[in-house]
Amino acid sequence: MVSENARNLTMLFDFYELTMANGYFKNGIGDKIAYFDMFFRKVPDKGGFAIMAGVEQMVEYLKNLKFTEDDIEYLRTKGFGKEFLDYLKNFEFKCDVWVVREGTPIFPGEPIVTVKGPVIQAQFIETMILLSINHQSLIATKANRIVRASQGRAVMEFGSRRAQGYDGAILGARAAYIGGCAGTACTISDSLYGVPALGTMAHSWIQMFDSELDAFCAYAREYPDNCTLLIDTYNVIKSGIPNAIEAFKREVLPRGFRPKGVRIDSGDITYLSKKARKMLDEAGFEDCKIVASNSLDEYIIRDMLMQGAKVDSFGVGERLITASSTPVFGGVYKLVAVEDENGEMIPKIKISENVAKITTPCFKNLYRLYDNETGKAMADLITLSDETIDDEKPYELFDPEHTWKRKTIENFTSVSLQEKIFENGKFIGKTRDIREIRDYCAAQIDTLWDEVTRFENPHDYYVDLSQKLWEEKNRLLENHKTR
Amino acid sequence: MVSENARNLTMLFDFYELTMANGYFKNGIGDKIAYFDMFFRKVPDKGGFAIMAGVEQMVEYLKNLKFTEDDIEYLRTKGFGKEFLDYLKNFEFKCDVWVVREGTPIFPGEPIVTVKGPVIQAQFIETMILLSINHQSLIATKANRIVRASQGRAVMEFGSRRAQGYDGAILGARAAYIGGCAGTACTISDSLYGVPALGTMAHSWIQMFDSELDAFCAYAREYPDNCTLLIDTYNVIKSGIPNAIEAFKREVLPRGFRPKGVRIDSGDITYLSKKARKMLDEAGFEDCKIVASNSLDEYIIRDMLMQGAKVDSFGVGERLITASSTPVFGGVYKLVAVEDENGEMIPKIKISENVAKITTPCFKNLYRLYDNETGKAMADLITLSDETIDDEKPYELFDPEHTWKRKTIENFTSVSLQEKIFENGKFIGKTRDIREIRDYCAAQIDTLWDEVTRFENPHDYYVDLSQKLWEEKNRLLENHKTR
Repeated sequence: MVSENARNLTMLFDFYELTMANGYFKNGIGDKIAYFDMFFRKVPDKGGFAIMAGVEQMVEYLKNLKFTEDDIEYLRTKGFGKEFLDYLKNFEFKCDVWVVREGTPIFPGEPIVTVKGPVIQAQFIETMILLSINHQSLIATKANRIVRASQGRAVMEFGSRRAQGYDGAILGARAAYIGGCAGTACTISDSLYGVPALGTMAHSWIQMFDSELDAFCAYAREYPDNCTLLIDTYNVIKSGIPNAIEAFKREVLPRGFRPKGVRIDSGDITYLSKKARKMLDEAGFEDCKIVASNSLDEYIIRDMLMQGAKVDSFGVGERLITASSTPVFGGVYKLVAVEDENGEMIPKIKISENVAKITTPCFKNLYRLYDNETGKAMADLITLSDETIDDEKPYELFDPEHTWKRKTIENFTSVSLQEKIFENGKFIGKTRDIREIRDYCAAQIDTLWDEVTRFENPHDYYVDLSQKLWEEKNRLLENHKTR
Repeated sequence: MVSENARNLTMLFDFYELTMANGYFKNGIGDKIAYFDMFFRKVPDKGGFAIMAGVEQMVEYLKNLKFTEDDIEYLRTKGFGKEFLDYLKNFEFKCDVWVVREGTPIFPGEPIVTVKGPVIQAQFIETMILLSINHQSLIATKANRIVRASQGRAVMEFGSRRAQGYDGAILGARAAYIGGCAGTACTISDSLYGVPALGTMAHSWIQMFDSELDAFCAYAREYPDNCTLLIDTYNVIKSGIPNAIEAFKREVLPRGFRPKGVRIDSGDITYLSKKARKMLDEAGFEDCKIVASNSLDEYIIRDMLMQGAKVDSFGVGERLITASSTPVFGGVYKLVAVEDENGEMIPKIKISENVAKITTPCFKNLYRLYDNETGKAMADLITLSDETIDDEKPYELFDPEHTWKRKTIENFTSVSLQEKIFENGKFIGKTRDIREIRDYCAAQIDTLWDEVTRFENPHDYYVDLSQKLWEEKNRLLENHKTR
């Protein structure tokens, strides 16, 4: 379904990817094998974890990499030479790609995408890898915060009109679903990706009729089996609820259905929802749900529920679809190793005055260690790519900065989080249904301790380096110092 | 150019647009003529004005409105009946549409898009009108703030990798260009929309060579006519600048060119740029530009320049492409009138406890009044659609809330800001080159007083209602009160 609709986004790259590609080509080093990692440094909103998303779209991009005649003509006008343009015309993707699967909780510093391949290619795909993963991981992470605040109540994504562009709406709804939303208002996200879409009416519907009651009755006649009415156009308590009750009685019950819900989109929703609940219950509609919308986010929802709001589900718009409190997910893509002429691996490190910006070199693997007794994730471990963790034996973890902090764990299961999805440019990964991704995400978040999932001052989840990797990183740091 | 690449985004709508459309259809009122206005309530970042953008994409959407067989099949699964689906299958757009042209400074409460047509259609297109205009107006407005802070220095949009989705990058670059950016790193925005794209190298380029000097020389050999070097991979002062100077001397000058620039992407750019400037000047490269990037925005740029940073141009990434300080442009789309069976206009108002949320009813026009002496914009005036302003005579403006505040102006020119771009569903507007839009935007901003364009506590530009419109609004408010 997705493949048919995939756009060719080959030309979506930062121009420097191509000046560099051409430079590598001209210098005869385009085929040198390079290793790049994507990782991020900070969890948005000072949260304890982020959620990996956007892999499917990254895969579609890589599958569809192809320069058209028009692209080549355009690039000719930018001054690139014939030989290089011929290379692009015959471009064939040859990289290996590993990813952490969609829906996985991820932490700062972890290699969430790794690319191995000719540097001319592995560099070129940087922009789209970052853009794909940064965007959807941002929204999935934000959505999950809102879902957690809602304590089991359904959260609907309602933000299309305020999204940052069409894909912001379409793929934002997809990411929000992965993050735990129950559905979206964005219809095309349903038809393309299977995110359940729903919606009822705007205030203009009410205004198109002579009275609110007429508007409600007309809607209820058409949708008696699925009747949710918007009750705040005039006055929730004095008119919206009484009219809704009347419309339910006139048009829903006689047709053999029960009313589905009412929606409040303005005013003091905590107060109004309590009043509305009481009136609905007194009318015998205890099963009628109350939906709240209007500039909600995880903090407002938490406070509403703390004050006893009688809300059964939330429609969340602009603050979710733009992750407005932290609207950037800062993933980066860094060179971590190259192979020399003999196929020997040469690790690369990027030094910075800012310690947080020093990269971890080498081709790596990433493990999550689960406590066999509780099922909870205890720590993640970044290793050299060829290291394996023997979870039959005790394993000593240590803090890579404060190395005297050590802890020996046992009775754990070690799971590699990386999946190889491209081999020599061919897709070899699994395509997963979005519901499977969403369920996996929820299950994985359940393996995190509450200390990691809270909003304020979450516990820093342990992301450690193996002894070998730590030594290699330190060796390069020392080399640099003495150079 | 754009039409060929336009996607069919007909299915990008909030689901309730369709439940309402079906409801209107079934109730036999789908063809009732309705008038909707798009307007916004607050300028992002507490600025004094916003910039209209996204019209071209909105037009493409409206031109391409068409439900495919697949769309119809999908909608059938959502329970819509055959008659309504047949209507959609044969959907033909029949609305009239007026817009404020792209690049125009716009103010809260102004009708920036007006749609007249069968309510079933005029309602349906809400989501995409809002999404198109909200997104690009947000980015154009933010970009212009950054451009103003840069005081004539070029600003490049560098944010693709951190954009909220692919269109966030592609159309964000377009909007940034309208707002005054000199270009973008996003290549596809150049090939599709003519936004000049450029770029040079990443840190990984440097790391691919044995030394920084080797990397610089390799680049300079390939691009001697356009050589900008990234000088902060190791140490700007101790290695980046000396190596750049050496590479310029070895590879650029002998080929008969002058060095283009150096880019600093980390560290204390104000300090480093002064040092770098001195060293470049001493080497005889006074014409070599210094480019700064790394988490910039209008405030950081203002402060850098205030402290004497020697920067000639800025590359601005995530904070521009996501408008991260206020990442939402809150445009809304409201019913303002309907026609009854006899074609009589019935104005509609949406009342709210929150005074700012009360809508201005009626089919309207929007004028900007320019002072003939200074050329400056004095005020905007919202009128009934059939009112004209005789700028040969004095005109009395008054504040619509504090009506005793009155001012009679003379010697002014009144310009209608609305252009009719669709008539009975056919596009009758003008298609403008993006450079023309950008130039128009800059020229229009020049008509605003400095008091309106400053960042902190800007003056509230006057947006007044005509006497007739004010009376009509008040009549409806009174009616509502006594009902």
